Amino acid sequence: MIVARTVADLRAVLRERSGSIGLVPTMGALHEGHATLLRSARKTDDTVVMTIFVNPAQFNEPSDLAAYPRTEEADLALAASEGVDVVFAPDAGEVYPAGFATTVSVTGPLAETLEGAERGRAHFDGVATVVTKLLLAALPDHAYFGAKDAQQVAVIRRFVADLGIPVTIVVCPTSRDTDGLARSSRNIRLSPEERAQALAIPHALQEVTDAAASGIADTEALRARALATLEASGIHPEYVAFVDPITFAPVTAVARPVLVAIAARVGRTRLIDNTVLGGA
Amino acid sequence: MIVARTVADLRAVLRERSGSIGLVPTMGALHEGHATLLRSARKTDDTVVMTIFVNPAQFNEPSDLAAYPRTEEADLALAASEGVDVVFAPDAGEVYPAGFATTVSVTGPLAETLEGAERGRAHFDGVATVVTKLLLAALPDHAYFGAKDAQQVAVIRRFVADLGIPVTIVVCPTSRDTDGLARSSRNIRLSPEERAQALAIPHALQEVTDAAASGIADTEALRARALATLEASGIHPEYVAFVDPITFAPVTAVARPVLVAIAARVGRTRLIDNTVLGGA
Repeated sequence: MIVARTVADLRAVLRERSGSIGLVPTMGALHEGHATLLRSARKTDDTVVMTIFVNPAQFNEPSDLAAYPRTEEADLALAASEGVDVVFAPDAGEVYPAGFATTVSVTGPLAETLEGAERGRAHFDGVATVVTKLLLAALPDHAYFGAKDAQQVAVIRRFVADLGIPVTIVVCPTSRDTDGLARSSRNIRLSPEERAQALAIPHALQEVTDAAASGIADTEALRARALATLEASGIHPEYVAFVDPITFAPVTAVARPVLVAIAARVGRTRLIDNTVLGGA
Repeated sequence: MIVARTVADLRAVLRERSGSIGLVPTMGALHEGHATLLRSARKTDDTVVMTIFVNPAQFNEPSDLAAYPRTEEADLALAASEGVDVVFAPDAGEVYPAGFATTVSVTGPLAETLEGAERGRAHFDGVATVVTKLLLAALPDHAYFGAKDAQQVAVIRRFVADLGIPVTIVVCPTSRDTDGLARSSRNIRLSPEERAQALAIPHALQEVTDAAASGIADTEALRARALATLEASGIHPEYVAFVDPITFAPVTAVARPVLVAIAARVGRTRLIDNTVLGGA
């Protein structure tokens, strides 16, 4: 497994290889969810490139950036064990050299509601700019993302289509621990009590799924059930949203597929999770 | 010569070819200046792709967009006579389909002063977004631009470097009519009297060049000379600017290379021109 620290080195390595390229962008602190993405890429592509870059531009809170777990040695070991061919792990100076002045932005409800509203405009601008750079650095055939970051995925699909970046976006199902909690690098910050409390989030999503399956189509009624489950565990969510999975426009009744997205702080840790009702 | 109307068609054509690709983006209304760009590409690259797209996003005035000359039949004939292999001439719906929501922006003085100030932020956002799309559609080895649009070239160099778009930008010298007027698609709108008046712009640039060569380094003194020449012909310029050719930061003395840029309306036609002092 080769570790490249610069775009020039990454491109030199990729020029030597033939066949399809799969890219798995990560911020490191790898867990089983990332391993699932790597396995999807390994099955499909001749060359698997994983990136590790904790992107300062997409963190709205300096304390969140500072606290974000960094575990490169373990990450490289996991990547090697999953058969990754190339890890691209640049430093911030390689990605944002002096004089850097360019932003890729998605405008409208897709980027400005929910995570865009809670974390600020700069969050998805930061995501779009760095993912554009990673895609152009590797020019992969496929790029793999997790469904847990549903709005991020929708933003990425949008600018990839709009700019015509020649890549197919592959979205893998959210990876969950056996207790149902969505895997996230942030979970290691949860105390045992917080972790138990956090389970109310997947429980609320399950309750909404069951209620919708039983015929309740009104999203306000479904939201009330989710809120009751969350608040019974002492969780006051930032949002419980029912939106179109592509445009993120609000939806009032479950007819076509509807994305149910939840964001909540548990202790000091901000968690997000989601599910799709009415077929994915 | 093949004419492609969609990105899919363009890519299908380019997949069949081998060797290097040169891209010459234009807004049509081709003149000898464009022919110079095409000849540079023809000398260097195995496949020459010319694009024709009058980009609504970069026009700040609807009347300027409406009045912009459209001469596709003559443009295709000129392209064929210059040995162009592929013309990519999409319509606005192909470039900006329903739901389009992405912008590539360069921030800071480079994009916000001079043309950015006169024409508004949206101008260079429009340029950066459409040029990104054209570069990603063709993935050329070289892309050719004229030095007349100096700030546009600097903006393009900036976002190409920042995003890591894999292309080399080639800048060709400004093409001039025998009387010295910089060639522009807008020149056909000048009346004979206006055209005579417009010559004060290249004359002012020549006067500044001569004065700098004679040892005058103070840019305020040089600007005063240019203004005197312009105003003697009844031209009240929007700006006569002395800036760093890469960052567009203002320069007060000619030591390193300095870009002298002029923008002025002659009658109803807005013209720009520039030269570089102190070595290019």
